[in-house]
Amino acid sequence: MEEKHYSIGEVSKLTNISIQTLRYYDQIGLFKPSYVDPKTNYRYYKDSQFYHLDIIKSLKYIGVSLEEIKAAQQFTPAELLSFLKQQESVIEQQMNRMYEIQQSLYKTKRQMEEQLAIDVMDTVYFKNEESVRILSIKTNELTPYYIPNTYYSSLIKTLEVENSLLSNRYGCIFPYQQYDSLDELHYSHVFTPLITDRYITHLTTDMDVKTIPAGRYVCIAFIFEPDTYLTQYQKLYHYIEEHQLQVLPVVYEIFMPLNYSPNGEDQFIVELKVKLL
Amino acid sequence: MEEKHYSIGEVSKLTNISIQTLRYYDQIGLFKPSYVDPKTNYRYYKDSQFYHLDIIKSLKYIGVSLEEIKAAQQFTPAELLSFLKQQESVIEQQMNRMYEIQQSLYKTKRQMEEQLAIDVMDTVYFKNEESVRILSIKTNELTPYYIPNTYYSSLIKTLEVENSLLSNRYGCIFPYQQYDSLDELHYSHVFTPLITDRYITHLTTDMDVKTIPAGRYVCIAFIFEPDTYLTQYQKLYHYIEEHQLQVLPVVYEIFMPLNYSPNGEDQFIVELKVKLL
Repeated sequence: MEEKHYSIGEVSKLTNISIQTLRYYDQIGLFKPSYVDPKTNYRYYKDSQFYHLDIIKSLKYIGVSLEEIKAAQQFTPAELLSFLKQQESVIEQQMNRMYEIQQSLYKTKRQMEEQLAIDVMDTVYFKNEESVRILSIKTNELTPYYIPNTYYSSLIKTLEVENSLLSNRYGCIFPYQQYDSLDELHYSHVFTPLITDRYITHLTTDMDVKTIPAGRYVCIAFIFEPDTYLTQYQKLYHYIEEHQLQVLPVVYEIFMPLNYSPNGEDQFIVELKVKLL
Repeated sequence: MEEKHYSIGEVSKLTNISIQTLRYYDQIGLFKPSYVDPKTNYRYYKDSQFYHLDIIKSLKYIGVSLEEIKAAQQFTPAELLSFLKQQESVIEQQMNRMYEIQQSLYKTKRQMEEQLAIDVMDTVYFKNEESVRILSIKTNELTPYYIPNTYYSSLIKTLEVENSLLSNRYGCIFPYQQYDSLDELHYSHVFTPLITDRYITHLTTDMDVKTIPAGRYVCIAFIFEPDTYLTQYQKLYHYIEEHQLQVLPVVYEIFMPLNYSPNGEDQFIVELKVKLL
């Protein structure tokens, strides 16, 4: 039986590859017609060529560039196998990255949901929290008046060295006690939540990976203002003392931006929370 | 305490973002300095701006374009949350696609490994096989002399309609019996292995999803040539008859390309296999 020849239009129909793409494949030498009519310049392809298009399609599908496909066409089966193994590890890396993005998105979404769930401002409330792994840095002499970004920058840089993800959220830790003036209130740590379970190496001596424990917290949230900060803290403090609540003597403070426009006015919600024992 | 101002170089150092990128962010209005010295044109950024860079970094990390980030800067927290949910489903789709690519790669690699494991040509051998899901199409009057690609094309098109993956491998099925001439040997089906577990809809009446059963097979492999095909088949047939092996009366034929160059000579290994009962 004579082997059938197909016009470029027929090949396009049979293979779902556009005529334009077939012409381009011819041009770059990836897939050439078996015969070109010298009079009409029409391209003709023979039946036994088709499987080369399958290979091109499949390699394209797994993300191999046309240039690499052209190189792969010269491979022996053993070479193709080792090429596929390489591709497998490329795909694995990409999937790991996607997985981390997914984790990061999930945690960021959770943070946003928690922020939106704060429906009482300026009033004490209770909530249950899951544990949160944080990267913290020791501080001294910092007060709510002003926290230089250099602290956060060093946290961020540590995470970036590790190729870890940023959580876009920061917080501070200070001792739970009576304060009569904001000047007395000194942060012991600033921190950022970790959004992967990676082991962080390259910690400087003042850095630490800690956990904010899971449990029931007594909290207060308010729009950040240095002038009202102390009053808000005192509301929380007096509530705890009046009700004789047994608490861990640590206050966790979380900043949450209320808008994201670099041109608008920066507004933050602050949530202060103390863990019940 | 006065809020500190940082030069573009200091911001770059603190945030690991290049000066060039910071200038570009200024240019497109994504992140502008809080102050530009009118004499020197130097850019100065204030401390409280930094967290906007974190948001930009994080959104960029999850694959959001700079244009979309600019739009997101105008979002309220609730809008940002619903945007993150959308991103989540984009990522999920991408991950599903990657997973299928991984599956496809794995199966293609396995196929190559099996092909390379054939170390005896022209001689009967045994091997254990896992079950293989195939998409098959009924044929008639086809012999090993010549199989028009139209059959394979309809298999491929069915799979492509389903967005399923191609396996780059084809085969035929014919009855196990004595043949004295190649003209007597008619394929009952041609097929392509399925490399995902997807349910295939849109089957034409002559198509079917079948399984090549797992088990021990008696096989022969050879370089495809119409002239020697019958002799090779007869070697397998006589071996089975002489040794009185109990077999399923079906022969599976698999084509495997030996080279991938569209310009070289096409060479295929054919493996014929019959399942032991």
